[in-house]
Parts: sequence; structure tokens; C-alpha cells
Amino acid sequence: MSAGLWKSVLVTGSSRGLGLQLVTELARSSNRPGIIIATARDPTTSTGLQELSKTYPGVHILKLDVDNQQSISSALEEVKSIVGNKGLNCLINNAAIGSSVDLNSVTPEAMMKTFQTNSVSPLFVSKTFLPLLQTAAAQSSGMGIHRAAVINISSILGSIESNWGESANLKSYAYRTSKAALNMVTRCLAVDLGSDGILCMSLHPGWVKTDMGGPHADLTVEESVSGMLSVLSSLTEDDHGGFKDYRGQKLPW
Amino acid sequence: MSAGLWKSVLVTGSSRGLGLQLVTELARSSNRPGIIIATARDPTTSTGLQELSKTYPGVHILKLDVDNQQSISSALEEVKSIVGNKGLNCLINNAAIGSSVDLNSVTPEAMMKTFQTNSVSPLFVSKTFLPLLQTAAAQSSGMGIHRAAVINISSILGSIESNWGESANLKSYAYRTSKAALNMVTRCLAVDLGSDGILCMSLHPGWVKTDMGGPHADLTVEESVSGMLSVLSSLTEDDHGGFKDYRGQKLPW
Ligand SMILES: NC(=O)c1ccc[n+]([C@@H]2O[C@H](COP(=O)([O-])OP(=O)(O)OC[C@H]3O[C@@H](n4cnc5c(N)ncnc54)[C@H](OP(=O)(O)O)[C@@H]3O)[C@@H](O)[C@H]2O)c1
Ligand SMILES: NC(=O)c1ccc[n+]([C@@H]2O[C@H](COP(=O)([O-])OP(=O)(O)OC[C@H]3O[C@@H](n4cnc5c(N)ncnc54)[C@H](OP(=O)(O)O)[C@@H]3O)[C@@H](O)[C@H]2O)c1
Repeated sequence: MSAGLWKSVLVTGSSRGLGLQLVTELARSSNRPGIIIATARDPTTSTGLQELSKTYPGVHILKLDVDNQQSISSALEEVKSIVGNKGLNCLINNAAIGSSVDLNSVTPEAMMKTFQTNSVSPLFVSKTFLPLLQTAAAQSSGMGIHRAAVINISSILGSIESNWGESANLKSYAYRTSKAALNMVTRCLAVDLGSDGILCMSLHPGWVKTDMGGPHADLTVEESVSGMLSVLSSLTEDDHGGFKDYRGQKLPW
Repeated sequence: MSAGLWKSVLVTGSSRGLGLQLVTELARSSNRPGIIIATARDPTTSTGLQELSKTYPGVHILKLDVDNQQSISSALEEVKSIVGNKGLNCLINNAAIGSSVDLNSVTPEAMMKTFQTNSVSPLFVSKTFLPLLQTAAAQSSGMGIHRAAVINISSILGSIESNWGESANLKSYAYRTSKAALNMVTRCLAVDLGSDGILCMSLHPGWVKTDMGGPHADLTVEESVSGMLSVLSSLTEDDHGGFKDYRGQKLPW
């Protein structure tokens, strides 16, 4: 990561898995961001975040339940006092729930709950933090995480095009639908925020060994996060409104 | 429409707009389907359906609120007794709600409600009627509406790819997201139902003068429905899992 590129970054769902690894890797980097804000719906129960706060006491750890607008608004007030008039440069919407329900087991409740957390919540977290992203964007030019960005952690399982043939073996009506919907949220936000200089994109982390990805996944959290951070570090205007994976490969909608 | 192609067809949301025109056009066709089932959440309040039942008394008119599983299940029982051991050949998921909410006005409630009606309900109507579609599919070969099909009336506004540049001028976080999600539902259903010989596709009716489309839309309901019926009449295996418009043009996801 090049020096000074990362200024302030907030990650949702950083109690464990990829979110925890993202804030850990950022904190240990030689070019660490000036401000790292690790959020979780209950930081006190995350052993990972507790260890992180001992090793890197400079990391801010905040409570943020993405499904709760009051929690989002309280977090906004805390973040405002942390970032001051510099605003927030990078928001990573990482929190999500998994759900593997096939046609037989899918219920309306599973569809609605997964859509809430994986598609609606990233929209309202982004909308709530928009003033801070705009403040940051007003202080730079170009496009990228040096200025302002909303990164939605999506999934190849949300690619409608790819859900065919062998790639369709993993059935999950609720999860696939929620990530396709998230990709539309990314695109709508990109259309609306581009003129403010705020880059928006969807990023697929690969299939990763976490509680969600399971033990048979392809990648370790280290491999996925090092790939994602290198993709994020080199984002330009060309990535605005796009969908890439952790290796920087473009994915189809 | 070629003779004998259309056997039985059920349309949701046929109280007005495109749904009403679909059942009317099918009823008046020289090669009309043996069984036409027009459903609406409250048929008694639809003057269009009342007129239709006078002119074409053979059309079955049933109550079906797509958001209510009990209503879907009751309709299934009625449809079973209408179609008997022939099953149901064509299910058209047409019912939907519009919603134009921009970033400023969008609420979690608008997102959830639109997702329920436009994405979740078509899935559960399809799942509930699946045994009747399978019964029909077991009696023919090939793929198309002569055998068995689930047609999801989607929208170009649900195309993530197309939501860019001038095409992105119409802002609607809730509606766009719900139709992108519906397209994923189409694709998931296509993957699961293909081996039964049930064709699944998304169909965009064009921009049409209805309550939803408004008076400035490009097309009359007659133009849109005549285009859609001609597309449906010529569906083949190649259309399975696809997304087309009323002129038969392939659309990007
Ligand atoms: N792992 C993979 O193979 C894979 C592949 C493609 C995409 N992804 C995506 O990558 C992201 C991270 O996944 P992961 O593998 O790290 O999953 P994970 O190990 O299951 O972790 C999920 C994280 O999201 C948090 N979360 C869930 N609901 C929340 C809420 N309402 N408020 C705040 N936080 C909430 C969880 O917090 P709690 O500890 O409080 O539950 C947890 O920190 C997700 O967006 C996922 O969809 C993962
Ligand atoms: N018009 C366009 O330009 C356009 C463009 C692209 C796609 N579409 C799609 O085309 C389809 C038809 O649209 P339209 O223009 O005919 O819309 P419309 O005139 O607003 O009619 C909508 C229909 O859906 C029904 N409906 C809504 N919620 C329902 C529920 N819970 N249960 C049963 N029926 C329900 C309505 O019934 P009530 O009378 O009971 O409310 C009405 O019959 C929709 O899927 C729409 O998204 C339309």
C-alpha cells in the first residue's frame, strides 16, 4: 500500500472473519491509515477485536448494528468526532449474513431477513455516512480511496450471469438474491455519488475460510484480504460502478 | 399465436394494466388457450375483470393476493380443480408495485415492501404452483409454453448493466433493486426447474401507458401485450434462464 493513500477507513462487521482481518491488516501495515474504525454489532463479545485493541490501541472500536438505524446514527455521531473536518475517506460495507436455502427449504422470512442485512443495510449505512464521505471528497480530486469510496463486499454468488452450469451448484435463493440486489444498490449509489467524487463498487473477496465460507474454502482470510487491499489501493475512475474480485478481475453482473 | 400452443395459463395481477390486457388478449385470440385463469387480489373491485367475465364467460377469475401465502394456497386448490390432471402450462408472474424513491426519499420500509411483492412473492407463487407445472411438463417434450413455463414480468429498470448514463435517469432504489432480485429468482428457478422441462425467463414489457408506466410511456397496453404474446409463443430452450423484452431482444443482466 502506498504511503498516504489510506487516510480514514470504517469497516462494518469486523467482529470476525474478513471484517476482522481487514482492520487487522490495515492496522499492521507499514502505511497504515491515519484513522481505522472497526465496527461490530457487539464489540464486547469479539475476542478478535479485544486482542486487536491491545496490540493496536490506536484503532477505534465502535458499536454498529447495521440493521438498526438508531445504531447507525449513533455511530455517525461518534465517527464525526473522530474524523473531525477531514470527513471519512473509505466506507467498507462488509457485514452480512449467509444463508443456504434451496427451493425446498427457502422461506419468505429467510428472503426478507437476508435482503435486510445484505442489501438494505449497506444502503442505509452509506446514506447515513454520506455527509462525511462528501466532506472528505471535497478535499481531494480524482477518484479512489485517497478521496472517498463506498466499497460493498458482494459475492460472485450475486452474479446473475454466473449463476448457470457448474457455478449454479451452490443453491441459495436468499443469499444470491440479496447480493444481486446489493449490486444494484452499488450501481444506483455510483450513479448518484459520482458527481461528488465518491467512488462506489462491489468487491468479491473470493471463497474464503471464515464462519460463512466454511473450512473447505479456497482461500485463507490473509490471502483474500491482501488481495482486496491491493485492489482497493489501486482503484481509479474506471472502477466506479463496477464489480471486481480480490484479484482485480472484472465480474459480470 | 399458433393453434394448440397455449393450453392453460394463469396471470397474477390481472385487475388492471398489463395483466388485464394479457388475459383479455388471450381470451379474444382466435387460438385462445383452453383455460385462462385471471387472478387479482380483489376481483370484485376490478371493473376490467367484471367486463371481461361478461364478454368471455369462459375465463376463470380467481382471488389471489400474491403477498399472502394462504391466498396463494387457496388459489392453488381452485386451480387444481379447474385444470385437473392436465396441470398448468404457463404461469405469468405479472403482479408488482411501482415505487420511485430516490436516494433522498428511499426508506427501509419502501425497500422491504417492494422486495416482498416484486421478488419474494413471484418465488412463492411459483413454488406453490410447481406441482401443477410439473404435471403439465410430464405430458410433453421440448421447452416452451406448449409444455410448461414460468414467466416473470421484470423490467429493464432491473438491469444492473443498463443502469448507467442516460438510462440511469429514472431513480428508484426500491423498484430497481426488486427487479434485479427478481432476475436472480428467475435464474435460480431456471437452474432448478430446467430438468423438469419447465422453462423460466424474465420478460420486460417495454415502457407502457398503465397506472405504473404513466401517460407519457412509449407504448399502449395493446402494443406491449401483442409483442409479449408473440415472444412467449415462440419461446424455445434457448430462452430458458434468459431476459428478453417484448420485441424479443435479449437484455443484459
Ligand atoms: N467467506 C466467503 O467465502 C465469502 C464469499 C463471498 C462473499 N463474502 C462476503 O464477505 C463479507 C464478510 O463475510 P465473512 O466470510 O467474513 O462472514 P462471517 O465470518 O460470517 O462474518 C460476518 C460478519 O458480519 C457481521 N454481521 C452480521 N450481521 C450484522 C449486523 N446486523 N450488524 C453488524 N454486523 C453484522 C458479523 O457480526 P457478528 O459476529 O455480530 O455476527 C460478522 O462480523 C460478507 O459480506 C460476505 O457476504 C464472503
Ligand atoms: N408499465 C410499465 O411501463 C412497465 C415497465 C416495466 C415493467 N412493468 C411490469 O409489468 C407488470 C405489470 O405492470 P403494470 O404497468 O400493469 O402495473 P399496474 O397498472 O400498476 O398494475 C399492477 C397490477 O399488479 C397488481 N398487484 C399489486 N400487488 C398485488 C398483490 N399483492 N396481489 C395481487 N396483485 C397485485 C395490481 O392489483 P390491484 O389492482 O389490486 O392493485 C395490478 O393488477 C409489473 O410486473 C411491472 O413491474 C411495467
